[in-house]
Amino acid sequence: MTTKNAKVALVGASGYVGEELVRLLLGHPHADLVAATSRQFAGQTLAEIFPRFAHDEKANGLKFSDADPKQLARDAEIIFLALPHGLAAEFAKPLVQAGVRVVDLSADFRVNDAAVYKEFYGHDQVAPELLAESVYGLPEIYRDKIRDAKLVACPGCYPTSILLPMLPLVREKLVGPKNVLVTSLSGVTGAGRKVEADYLFAECNESMRPYGVPKHRHLAEIEQELSIAAGKKITIQFTPHLVPVNRGIISTIYVDVTNKIHIAAIDSVFENGYGSEPFVRLLGKGRLPDTKNVVGTNFIDIACKIDNRTGRLILMSAIDNIVKGASGQAIQCFNLMRGFPETAGLL
Amino acid sequence: MTTKNAKVALVGASGYVGEELVRLLLGHPHADLVAATSRQFAGQTLAEIFPRFAHDEKANGLKFSDADPKQLARDAEIIFLALPHGLAAEFAKPLVQAGVRVVDLSADFRVNDAAVYKEFYGHDQVAPELLAESVYGLPEIYRDKIRDAKLVACPGCYPTSILLPMLPLVREKLVGPKNVLVTSLSGVTGAGRKVEADYLFAECNESMRPYGVPKHRHLAEIEQELSIAAGKKITIQFTPHLVPVNRGIISTIYVDVTNKIHIAAIDSVFENGYGSEPFVRLLGKGRLPDTKNVVGTNFIDIACKIDNRTGRLILMSAIDNIVKGASGQAIQCFNLMRGFPETAGLL
Amino acid sequence: MTTKNAKVALVGASGYVGEELVRLLLGHPHADLVAATSRQFAGQTLAEIFPRFAHDEKANGLKFSDADPKQLARDAEIIFLALPHGLAAEFAKPLVQAGVRVVDLSADFRVNDAAVYKEFYGHDQVAPELLAESVYGLPEIYRDKIRDAKLVACPGCYPTSILLPMLPLVREKLVGPKNVLVTSLSGVTGAGRKVEADYLFAECNESMRPYGVPKHRHLAEIEQELSIAAGKKITIQFTPHLVPVNRGIISTIYVDVTNKIHIAAIDSVFENGYGSEPFVRLLGKGRLPDTKNVVGTNFIDIACKIDNRTGRLILMSAIDNIVKGASGQAIQCFNLMRGFPETAGLL
Amino acid sequence: MTTKNAKVALVGASGYVGEELVRLLLGHPHADLVAATSRQFAGQTLAEIFPRFAHDEKANGLKFSDADPKQLARDAEIIFLALPHGLAAEFAKPLVQAGVRVVDLSADFRVNDAAVYKEFYGHDQVAPELLAESVYGLPEIYRDKIRDAKLVACPGCYPTSILLPMLPLVREKLVGPKNVLVTSLSGVTGAGRKVEADYLFAECNESMRPYGVPKHRHLAEIEQELSIAAGKKITIQFTPHLVPVNRGIISTIYVDVTNKIHIAAIDSVFENGYGSEPFVRLLGKGRLPDTKNVVGTNFIDIACKIDNRTGRLILMSAIDNIVKGASGQAIQCFNLMRGFPETAGLL
Repeated sequence: MTTKNAKVALVGASGYVGEELVRLLLGHPHADLVAATSRQFAGQTLAEIFPRFAHDEKANGLKFSDADPKQLARDAEIIFLALPHGLAAEFAKPLVQAGVRVVDLSADFRVNDAAVYKEFYGHDQVAPELLAESVYGLPEIYRDKIRDAKLVACPGCYPTSILLPMLPLVREKLVGPKNVLVTSLSGVTGAGRKVEADYLFAECNESMRPYGVPKHRHLAEIEQELSIAAGKKITIQFTPHLVPVNRGIISTIYVDVTNKIHIAAIDSVFENGYGSEPFVRLLGKGRLPDTKNVVGTNFIDIACKIDNRTGRLILMSAIDNIVKGASGQAIQCFNLMRGFPETAGLL
Repeated sequence: MTTKNAKVALVGASGYVGEELVRLLLGHPHADLVAATSRQFAGQTLAEIFPRFAHDEKANGLKFSDADPKQLARDAEIIFLALPHGLAAEFAKPLVQAGVRVVDLSADFRVNDAAVYKEFYGHDQVAPELLAESVYGLPEIYRDKIRDAKLVACPGCYPTSILLPMLPLVREKLVGPKNVLVTSLSGVTGAGRKVEADYLFAECNESMRPYGVPKHRHLAEIEQELSIAAGKKITIQFTPHLVPVNRGIISTIYVDVTNKIHIAAIDSVFENGYGSEPFVRLLGKGRLPDTKNVVGTNFIDIACKIDNRTGRLILMSAIDNIVKGASGQAIQCFNLMRGFPETAGLL
Repeated sequence: MTTKNAKVALVGASGYVGEELVRLLLGHPHADLVAATSRQFAGQTLAEIFPRFAHDEKANGLKFSDADPKQLARDAEIIFLALPHGLAAEFAKPLVQAGVRVVDLSADFRVNDAAVYKEFYGHDQVAPELLAESVYGLPEIYRDKIRDAKLVACPGCYPTSILLPMLPLVREKLVGPKNVLVTSLSGVTGAGRKVEADYLFAECNESMRPYGVPKHRHLAEIEQELSIAAGKKITIQFTPHLVPVNRGIISTIYVDVTNKIHIAAIDSVFENGYGSEPFVRLLGKGRLPDTKNVVGTNFIDIACKIDNRTGRLILMSAIDNIVKGASGQAIQCFNLMRGFPETAGLL
Repeated sequence: MTTKNAKVALVGASGYVGEELVRLLLGHPHADLVAATSRQFAGQTLAEIFPRFAHDEKANGLKFSDADPKQLARDAEIIFLALPHGLAAEFAKPLVQAGVRVVDLSADFRVNDAAVYKEFYGHDQVAPELLAESVYGLPEIYRDKIRDAKLVACPGCYPTSILLPMLPLVREKLVGPKNVLVTSLSGVTGAGRKVEADYLFAECNESMRPYGVPKHRHLAEIEQELSIAAGKKITIQFTPHLVPVNRGIISTIYVDVTNKIHIAAIDSVFENGYGSEPFVRLLGKGRLPDTKNVVGTNFIDIACKIDNRTGRLILMSAIDNIVKGASGQAIQCFNLMRGFPETAGLL
């Protein structure tokens, strides 16, 4: 079978997520990057802005352009949006109308309910008419829908690290809807390439700190997906922490187990759910996740322990926030959308 | 009032806790360090082993010696033990018998119940007859007992960061005995100066990982002290994480609040309990703890938030694991024991 | 002798150097901080802006104010300027005229020759009439002049780390004027609290890079002081590198030795020059400097080795760029100016 | 052309260099890893020991074995040795005798002169009879010899970073043989996975330090290769520094230029020498190397500046010490030896 390569464009390429998408797309065997936009860098080549790609022929040939939806819609068949929320929805509208398929990495199309979106993001969802078409881009859960999606809303980094360990157990009713508590640790790229004093080296190095307490925006999509899986409303506790590493997320999740349950039952649900997933690694007995084993990859490492003293299950996961938590997962969706091998460009 | 200086000795001075005790004792206005022992470094001066103190006259004059309890008991009136558990109790016995006061930084005398000690530490408590005399060295809670104690068991680093935020609320019954969950993040010195592959730079840097799941040893003393304060048995969930910083602990604690409670009530309990404590800083509205504000100091920073969505209280604290979590707290106890100003040598 | 405390003010308190001056002044036994200025933070207390000092009574009582030279001149007898170059000289003028003594931490008064200043800083020296009065604030070299100075120009961080090892050897003609090469490594606070993308955590962490090649501004003062000591013009090679630590400088200096010389002669010059200096630590045989031994202190650690293969002397030094390289040295000068013990507030 | 895959084995797979070779070989399109040896891990699979490869089928199927030269010689046609010096030569002997081609990553066969080897390594070269056959594995310099080599001695990490910028200029006599000085900065993996106190996280983090002054072992091979290129003996000054990053080397090299030379001449030599090299990136005007642009890759980034004030040329380079400085370069040699595309498995 000789599948034709896909012409793709990337809008908003200058942040960490955009740069990682450039890396993945330049190395992708079936993607032709035809345009990358950045207001800030327009006119300069990708190689000039990202010295990591200085050797790459394509990166030397391709210049950042201003984002012109019409032009992009003519040149590309799938367009990745790595834009701030709000802006992303605005940009997606004409593209979807023009029939181009969109992989959006912002939060704009993750939350199905525009009212919930507004509650968490503080402004109206700009393109609510597109919500019905958008698919939540978690391949392990929505693989089939992603294949045919016109608009994929890539999950947030924390949600990816929390939903993948929880969803199989929630669906099987092994985990109750109450008393779900999550503590996450994130590397500093999680904040994006924001030029703010809080993210200066000397403010983050030798520092650890909770933030976004108690109502981080990612709760909107986490609770949405958990509730869908449970068939009833799930409200969780979630506290992210900033840690001085470049990349990585650890999520440690506490759940009440519905009744006296053996770890073998949990393992079996995971094995059934994820045994053949290419990017989910179930850590065996005695193993705990460590971000250094996943950084730079699209894997999620998942471990679980039952605490007999408290009757609780402890789920732990590790991902690279920029890869499985953003750009890698976007590529995984892209592969599905175009019928390429799901792991193409990701191993 | 002219108080005479105290002659003190330090047994097991070569780890991070020992080195920090050296630093604090060299700078203490009322302590005369008369001996420091270390099998490994016997015969070398403190200045030779710890280049940070290369300028210090006392550090140049004092050589590490082998630990001879009889000699130490003759030379010093208060002796700090910075030894591994098991060894510490063995060493404390002859000292206490000889009438010397002991400040022990190991876990040996923290757990009142020898059976619980054995459950968590895997071997018998070596000197159970001393348990009745030992005082848990948390000055904010046991100040008066510490003053007269013959044997002070300095709390562990995690317990310090967890108990100080919780105890006032538990005592006032504002916090129920159920559903207490704690996630802690610790810098790598928390593991001591252990020469093991797991703590090599390249294994810890750019890494985050949970460990000790689900039954970390510190649970023994945490639950003991919570249970004493509550007047009934409290079992908690606790997950520590290793984070690539040298020093610092963040503890994020989730508790159910017994009934609909306003944050003002919590604040008021903290204000009553800690308003005049020299080393407890209650962070005001909107402030969250950050280890970089406490590293190198004996302070604990405490913040709390009520999450109205979940009806839970979130307590957050930051300490330096080596100072307030070990050596600084030991000095604070020492000051109490000898009637020196509690902050002497610590500000 | 009961010396009256000195009333001091700090202008431009919001950067890393300013914050460290606040720390040192709050803890200084003979300094009363009567004013701290910051346009950005005017109206807020020092404790609010710097959570490290949240417990400090003075930090809670003192609010940042706008900088009003007249008012400051009335209230303080010595004023520290932690301002950008250019601005500092402008601010110093009215203060010096009003008879207040000034300790300036910018580069404005370090370079005696206004033409050289312009060559390296790209603009005119704003107050050239003050150059004649200004003293280069390296206490080990200009101690007596500093005592009586109206205006002290505190040395730059790199210059401090380079001049202290070199000057005694240059003065004794043991080191030739040619072929001096210096490579320095600096922590990121060396760039100040500049909110620029280059200094974001993820741009500095896991990164090492040379910068300012080949003509870093600090060359102006380094060559000036070397030339004064040598009695003839010395031009050197100097390359700084940015390294992912918060604080610290390592300077590795290569010099031709004028003739076949034994290390003992070098050691003896150092011993004579620095044997009784309170903040210079000459590392003994086999010891090499490590920034972790000086960070947070006002010490400079100096080591030297002769390479018989090449006939060169290698000098190595370590300082804390913010303490001995800036704020600590400023306090050392202040102590001299007011006749306080030179180490007051610094040990 | 259908080249058959190469059967390869890896001896001493448990260090950082070995682990990286595993990574590169598992992903190599033309290499079949048939054996990996490690005394410490014998009997366990690669996937068990290296959790990064937990998903990899081959890593799950292959167990570490004890190193049996005879068996290895039967099973593999090219064998990588990632052993300590001394041990490597001993191991290479029977392999070379058995007709297997060897890529050695130790220092044993880098130094042509056994007396020089002994001077720098403190013990006799164990297999001096093989020195005549060994080729120094710097593809940019010895490409043709490597193709036919029976025994390749992969260059050290520092030598790679120093020789590549210097050799073209030395060969063209643009750089004099005198006054070559190099300062290098290395990440901590450069020390290997040595379980020693000096390399514990808290000893390296927030630390910068020179070491190996003045006669680091790598001088032997650096001076050998420079001297060969110059046609006369070159002695250089070299000081390595340890910096708290996992990976990366920056080398800053000062050379006297033989006569008044324009940067264009230097650029032209580099362009001629390296313009078509797949792994050498010549940084353009105004660009300086940064390790973060090369970490994880086999590239070397090279920049140069002329300092008109001093008449010196400053060469700067950045590599990943484990990739271009060790395992990646070994794979590059391997590709040459077997006639695979030189970049196979490396881009």
